[in-house]
Order: sequence, then structure tokens, then C-alpha cells
Amino acid sequence: MKRIATGLISAAMLAAIPMPALAENPDETAQIIDEGLGQSQVQQLAHELVDQIGPRLTNSTNMRRAEAWAVEKMRELGLQNVRKEGFEFGRGWDYIASDVRMIAPRPLELAALPVAWTPGTNGTIEAEIVVAPIAKKEHFEAYRGKLAGKIVLITKPGTGDEPGTAPFRRLDNGEIAKRDAIDLPSFDPDSLERRREQSDYALELDEFLRSEGAVAWVKKSYRDGKLLHGTGYTFESGKTPSLPGFEIAAEDYRRLTRLAKTGPAPRLSLMAETRFVDDDTQAYNIIGEISGSDPKAGYVMAGAHFDSWFAADGAVDNGAGSVTVLEAARILKAIGAKPKRTIRFALWGAEEQGLHGSLAYIRRHMMEREGEEGLSPRELGREWRYLYPATPKPGYSQMKAYFNMDNGSGKFRGIHAEGNVGAEKLMRSWLSPFADLGASQVVAGNTGGTDHVYFQAVGLPAFQFVQDPLDYFARLHHTNADTFDHLRPDDLRQTSTVMAGVLLAAANDEDALPREPIPQAPQDSDPFDYKYPDED
Amino acid sequence: MKRIATGLISAAMLAAIPMPALAENPDETAQIIDEGLGQSQVQQLAHELVDQIGPRLTNSTNMRRAEAWAVEKMRELGLQNVRKEGFEFGRGWDYIASDVRMIAPRPLELAALPVAWTPGTNGTIEAEIVVAPIAKKEHFEAYRGKLAGKIVLITKPGTGDEPGTAPFRRLDNGEIAKRDAIDLPSFDPDSLERRREQSDYALELDEFLRSEGAVAWVKKSYRDGKLLHGTGYTFESGKTPSLPGFEIAAEDYRRLTRLAKTGPAPRLSLMAETRFVDDDTQAYNIIGEISGSDPKAGYVMAGAHFDSWFAADGAVDNGAGSVTVLEAARILKAIGAKPKRTIRFALWGAEEQGLHGSLAYIRRHMMEREGEEGLSPRELGREWRYLYPATPKPGYSQMKAYFNMDNGSGKFRGIHAEGNVGAEKLMRSWLSPFADLGASQVVAGNTGGTDHVYFQAVGLPAFQFVQDPLDYFARLHHTNADTFDHLRPDDLRQTSTVMAGVLLAAANDEDALPREPIPQAPQDSDPFDYKYPDED
Repeated sequence: MKRIATGLISAAMLAAIPMPALAENPDETAQIIDEGLGQSQVQQLAHELVDQIGPRLTNSTNMRRAEAWAVEKMRELGLQNVRKEGFEFGRGWDYIASDVRMIAPRPLELAALPVAWTPGTNGTIEAEIVVAPIAKKEHFEAYRGKLAGKIVLITKPGTGDEPGTAPFRRLDNGEIAKRDAIDLPSFDPDSLERRREQSDYALELDEFLRSEGAVAWVKKSYRDGKLLHGTGYTFESGKTPSLPGFEIAAEDYRRLTRLAKTGPAPRLSLMAETRFVDDDTQAYNIIGEISGSDPKAGYVMAGAHFDSWFAADGAVDNGAGSVTVLEAARILKAIGAKPKRTIRFALWGAEEQGLHGSLAYIRRHMMEREGEEGLSPRELGREWRYLYPATPKPGYSQMKAYFNMDNGSGKFRGIHAEGNVGAEKLMRSWLSPFADLGASQVVAGNTGGTDHVYFQAVGLPAFQFVQDPLDYFARLHHTNADTFDHLRPDDLRQTSTVMAGVLLAAANDEDALPREPIPQAPQDSDPFDYKYPDED
Repeated sequence: MKRIATGLISAAMLAAIPMPALAENPDETAQIIDEGLGQSQVQQLAHELVDQIGPRLTNSTNMRRAEAWAVEKMRELGLQNVRKEGFEFGRGWDYIASDVRMIAPRPLELAALPVAWTPGTNGTIEAEIVVAPIAKKEHFEAYRGKLAGKIVLITKPGTGDEPGTAPFRRLDNGEIAKRDAIDLPSFDPDSLERRREQSDYALELDEFLRSEGAVAWVKKSYRDGKLLHGTGYTFESGKTPSLPGFEIAAEDYRRLTRLAKTGPAPRLSLMAETRFVDDDTQAYNIIGEISGSDPKAGYVMAGAHFDSWFAADGAVDNGAGSVTVLEAARILKAIGAKPKRTIRFALWGAEEQGLHGSLAYIRRHMMEREGEEGLSPRELGREWRYLYPATPKPGYSQMKAYFNMDNGSGKFRGIHAEGNVGAEKLMRSWLSPFADLGASQVVAGNTGGTDHVYFQAVGLPAFQFVQDPLDYFARLHHTNADTFDHLRPDDLRQTSTVMAGVLLAAANDEDALPREPIPQAPQDSDPFDYKYPDED
């Protein structure tokens, strides 16, 4: 005999049945997916930031516009405690216009950009080139007396490249699985010493060229195909180089060097209009949050650097990450999420010059290290992580998870545990609702070079998403082609949806991600090594 | 019992032993390889042509310099009957300088080139853009009254590309083998009618824009990654367009269109300094030869077009082919080759505007067609091959083989028989000494778009080499990156060596390549077709 149990369980009885953690708010995950994929604002946000504002070189006039936009945008989204946290950086630099031509032996427009943080030309410079490959101080002597009145080409020309892999690609699961391995830590104390010695090279080169009477210097673009970058690093206040520096497209640079080898040295006309911006030497992190219901539960956080290079509009580096963070916040506000823990959103400043913004956040809220006082921003970037002992600040225990995005606009395929293997199980559960969107793999491996690094290095649970590489490194990273139209809007709908979902799961989980130990001074990985006297 | 035959055959006896054709001059093949690979001048020739002279747009001032260089070079090499054969083409056009900027809503240098054969700006034009996608005359009406005072963006912007194959590649043997197949000929008489209708579109568009009061027009580059071309075709004397035309890099063009969609129309500043060259409307083929020992044996010929686009230096298109032809001549002179048949070397003019140079050669020496008199160069390019009957001239029977090179600087992997299957056996034997250099495959397939086409179309034995594609179409063909450093010198040592060897074998072979029949009027391949009234 069978009895059909229709209508026999009341709503009150249902509410009393215990349910697994993830299913506690089953409709919230569905709402996130619906809002993030179906009502996405990523294109509108990216258009405003990338097309309308454009490049965001740290402390440039344009970056100030972007900072104001971001604060306003976070407020519009209804985030709480929206604020700019300043930190000492150095001067800004604006690129206004440039024009570089060969005027002899034949007239030719050259693809070129000024190098960031070099002075303009004050009108137009016309001079002959001299090809003088210089890579270190030891090379200066060979060129003494040969550079007066010249435009000095300092890079070896080399030859055209043969790009044998597809510029645009997605990862297969096997490639991702290979990242499920931890690198042994390694530390060479000599390398820190070498970095100290080398770090003044740019200004020493400038001083050498100036003292020899050179009128400007030129380096070759490090990518072929007429791509340009204009990268340069001498941003410290008061350390103004004397000479205008330019980057010339590889094809145009090599042509100059060949012509100089077989005939009269080509003459160039150089014009760069640039401007130093010294009225505020602080850079800023822009922070907002969705406050949690439990003030003692701490916070989870997502971040992306907001600054960019100036050669194009900072679209995939890192408009993509910035827009994803803002859109994840928008999605969570749109579905009315009420997380237990606070969810904090950070747009970091000055990442491109050495992760200065995230380091400043950690120094302010998380950890102090002996000997850090009095170090300049550049010295902090070089030395801070090697100072011991390291002492946590009160804010240290409040951070439960940090998620970073800075690998272009490719969709999320999973997440790097960054060596924190104890965290993998929880991250797997948080990602699990998004397996059908292609973001399911949790791998142990480490990644470097962006803003999760300092968090992770001080033992905090900090992670970076696995992303499809697309054409990020092939042709966009720091180039003059890093524009809105190389963002992939469908990928960004996915990244913002997954980020929103993971943040909410992390904020509501009964467990928090496990920390790693407070760092100790690293072990020299080759203590028995000897070096030649002149070995680098 | 055995007898050792040492010393029993005299030199005189050896000379009397008949040997197979190829081994007749065994040392000549070895000498060609030695000279071509070990003493190559391809880099020097390419440097002079590509770096020092640069772009060679038909009838431009620079092309005149290049023509003089080629004549001088052929004479230096000791070629006989060096000559320029002129033919009516139209006007030249010089590109001198340009500068294109966005001045609002934010200042930005844009990557751009003027479109060839459009007038300069006479100083600087500043105006707002209007995005008005126009692809044919039927679209004009929709924009009437909306373009006055504007810079008109005529291309649909589309979105960023996703290049999923390697830019630089070599062929595997299987890919080459697939070309061993003949396409059925097909002919649609309507297509000729459509081409007649469309051929005045460029000037009609110019006239429409002028009559509406537009100040300039802009098209989008057809390649992403900041590559530019500047291609344009209205080269006929007396048909000067009114408005300056520009090509803007895809990324920069799309940014303009997005900004125009969401805010005030961007303002641009446009400057182009260009010049029409009308003092000689003839273009020229440059021809030289190594005279054969048998005046009745006719000639074999290698050719490559010598003109280029202007966006860069015409290196892989077709400096590569031009240098290979000259170097093959140099190799043959260096080894003292005394061929039976004359070996003729041709550098064709005006290929890029429609194979005008090779067509002029054929009309002058090979074949006349009823109704060709009085047709303009552009009409000849469009119509000549459809005129019947076709009557060979006396020179027709003199040509025994033509070999063309116009697919970049990739090494030869074999040769296309271009449907002339009767020729395959001979070509295989001529290529056989070069199998170890990778050039051994003879495939039946057809190729189009360059100077062997008219020879082959009138029944002459004319062929194009199979070449490794490298990055020719991915980023170099007609772009601003077509520079010397994307030539591959090792490949060009091989192409010139193989070309020299094949020419000498063809010149000395007892057999000549078989012709195909004199062409007859083609069969309509779909005689039962119907069309909608407005169908293209």
C-alpha cells in the first residue's frame, strides 16, 4: 500500500530542515548568474574607463580623472566606506603629443613614443643618430667622446622575429592541470645586492649621455609588428632625467641602424610634448565595501590594479580587472546580497611601478617589518619583503580571503591556490556552482608579478584566478594596441559573475580560508656557491 | 680472376661517353649552389633596394629612383640588352608626411596613413567626425544632408579580432601535396558586368562626399594590431578625387566610433602632405638577359614585380622576388653560365594596380586580342582576358618557360604547374638537384593574383614557385611592417640559388615546356541561372 505525501509537509517544517551550506541561499547563486550574464554592465563600465578616460599612468592627470570616476562609481553602486587611501609614490607624467621622423637619407614617418618620465623636447630636435649599444655602466667608457650632438640609439638591433604560436589562445584543461604543482622556494642573497646596484642605472645612463653632450636617446621596441610601449621607470620626485628618451618601433629602429652601418648616419627630427605632475606625490588605492552582518567576522576582498601604461588605454591591463571588480560589486548590490562577512573591493594604485598600492595597503593594515621606516617607495618595493622580523598588525586577522585579477580579459578557468594547499578544498566548493561556466579548476601553483603577491608573501590567504591568456602577452600587454576592442565582453561577463559568486560564498562560509605561517627569513638556496670577481 | 681497371680509361674516352642531360654540366649545379649559398648578395641587394630606396609605388618619384637603380644593377651584373619597356599607366603619387590626432574629447595621437592617390590636406583640417558606414552607391541617399563640414568614417567598425593561428609558419609536405589538384575553370558573365559597374565607385563616393560638403573621409585598417596599409586605386590621369582620404588603425578607428555613439562626436586634426606626379604617365618593365648560344632556341624567363605599396618599404612584397631575380642573374654570371637558350630577367611595373606590367609585356610581344585598342589601362586590366579571338604574335613561340616569384621571402618548396600537367615531368627533373634544399615538389594547382597569370592564361608555360608562407599574409602583405628585417636572408639564399639552377636547366634542356592551347571564349559555368532584380 502506498500513500502519496502531498501537502503533508508545512512551510514551517521545511524551514526547520537543516540544509548544506551552499544550498542555504540557492536562489542567490542563480540570481548572480542571471544578473551577471544577462544584465551585465561590463561594456558600459569599460567604455567609460577605457575609451572615455583612457590611459592611467600613475599620478598622471588622467589617473586623477580615473580615480574620481572610480570613487563616484563605487558610491553610485551603493558601496559603503568608499575612500581613497593615499601612499607616497612620486611624480606623475603626462604624455601630450609626439612626432618622430627620419629626414635623411629619405623622409619617413617613424612609429615612436616618448619613454615615460623623460622630459619633452621643447620644440623639435634635429640631429644625426649614432648606434651605441649600451646595456650597463661598464659599456659607457667605449663611447666616450663619440656622442656629442647625437641622438644615441642604445639597443642592439637584432633581427625580425618569427612568431610561431597563435597570438590568441585559450587553455585546455591539461595545461591548467600542469599548474597543480608547487615550486620550491628559492632565494639568492646576492640577487638583492645586484638589484640595489642596478637600480640607479637609468639615471646614470642619462647622466653619462648628458655629460657627453648627446641630445636624446632612443631604445628599440621589444615587440615587432610596429607595436610600441614607451615604458620607463624613473618616477621618483626630484630625480628628473636631462634627456628626452624615445622608443621607436622595432622595424623602424632596425632600418636606422642598417642605414647607419652602410651610409651616412640618418638624421632624425624628434618632438615630444610631455609634462611632469608634481602637485600631489601620493598615489591612491580606491576602496569600497558591502558591510557584513557580523562585525566580528572580518572581510573577504577582491582587487585589481587600476593604473595602466600610457601607450594605449589600459584595456586588458588592467581595465579588465578593474571593471570586473566593479561589476562584481554591482551584481552583489543588484541581487541585494547581505553577506555575513564584509566584502571589500580594492582598485590598487601604482601596480605597474612595483605593486606599490597593494604593498601600501599591507603596510597600513596588515604588517610592519623592522627597518621599513625611512625607505623610499622604490626602496620599499625592492627591500620590504626581505626585512625581518615581520610583525602582524591588528588588521591582519580580519582578512579571510583575497582574490586578485590581472591577467587580461580572458574568462576564469579556475584559481591558483598560490601554494596554500590547505585552502584548495574550500575554494573548490566556492567555485563549484560555476563549473558550467568553465571556471572549476583549483591548482596549487604560484603566480607572480601582481597585487596578490604581497598578501600571499606575508601568509595571508591570497589568490589569483586562472584566466584564458587570449592575446594578452602576444600583443596587448603594455602596448599601443591595448584598447577596448581587444576586451572580450563575453569573457568579462563570466569573470564578474564568477567573482561575485566566489566573494559571496567566501563571505558566508562557516569556515575561512587557512592562513600560511608568518614569514621567516628565507634560506639561501645555494649556500655553498662561489662567484668569479666580475660575475653578475 | 679479377682485373683492376685503374688508368685504363683515358680522358678522351671519358669525354666520348654519352651522359644524361642533367649530368652534362655536373659542376655547374654544384657551382650554383656554392655561389648562391656561400657568396650570396641578397642582403646587400635588399638593403639597397628596400632600406635605401624604400617604397616603390607605381610612378612615384621613389619608383623612378628604383627603376634607375635596377637598370644600373643589371648592367653592373653584365646582363645584355638591359632596357626599360614603357607602357601607359597613369599618374604617380608621393607620400611625404602625415599626422592624425584626436583633439576632443581627449588628446590622442592616432596611427594613420593617407589613402594612396588622394590629395593632401593643404595644411591641417580640424573637424568633427560622423560615422556613416557606406559600402555602395545605394547607401549614399541615407546620409544626404548629414555630412557637411564633417570627417566621414565610412567603414563599419566591427570588433577586435582573435588571431588563432601562428603568424609565422612553414608548410609541411602534406599541405603542399594537397595543391596537386586542378580546379575546374568557372566563368560567370554577370561578374564582368558587375565589375564594370563597380569600377567607378571610388570616384563616385568621392563626388558624393564632396557634394555633401564633407571635408575628408576615413576608412578602417583591415588588419588589427595597429597595422596600416593606405591602399587606394584611383590612379588614372585626370581623375583626381576632391577629398583627402585616410586609413586609421583599427583600434583607433573603433574607439572613435564608440565615443561618437555615446557622447559628443570626437574632433580630429588631419594633416597629409602628398603630391601627384604627372610628368611621365608611363610605367616600366625592366628587362635584361644572358644571351643564349642558339639564337633560334628562344628564351626562358624569370620575373617578379618591382613595384610595391607605400606603407613601408616593399620588402617581402616584392623586394624578395626582385632581389631573388637579380641574385639568380648574378649567380649565373658569376659561374660563367653559357646557356643554349637566352635567360631573360624581368622586373615588372604596376603589378599592384592589376598586373599591368606583365600584361603590357604580353600585349607587346606575345598576343593581341580583338577590341583591345583604345581601352584605358584600367579597362585593359578588367577586360583584356575576355576579348576574343586571341591571336599570337611572333614572339609567342619564343618563350619556353616563365617562372614567377611573388609570395614573400619564404624559401621555395617546389613549383605550381598551374594546371599545365604536361610540364610536370620536366619541372621535376629541373628541381631534382635542389631536393636537399627543400625545393622538390611539383604540384598541378593554380595560383592567382600575380604576374604569371596572364602568361598562363594565354597558353604559355608559366609557373609560380611554392613558397613557405612565413608571416606574409598574417602581418606583412601591404602593411607598414613590410620592412627589410622581415625578409629571411637564409630563405632568400635558397630561392635565388634554386631559381638560378632551374633557369639554367630550362635553358639547356633539349625539351621545352609544353604550351597549353590558345584560349577560347570561356563557357558560362551556370547557364541556367536566374537572379533577383536587385541581386549582386
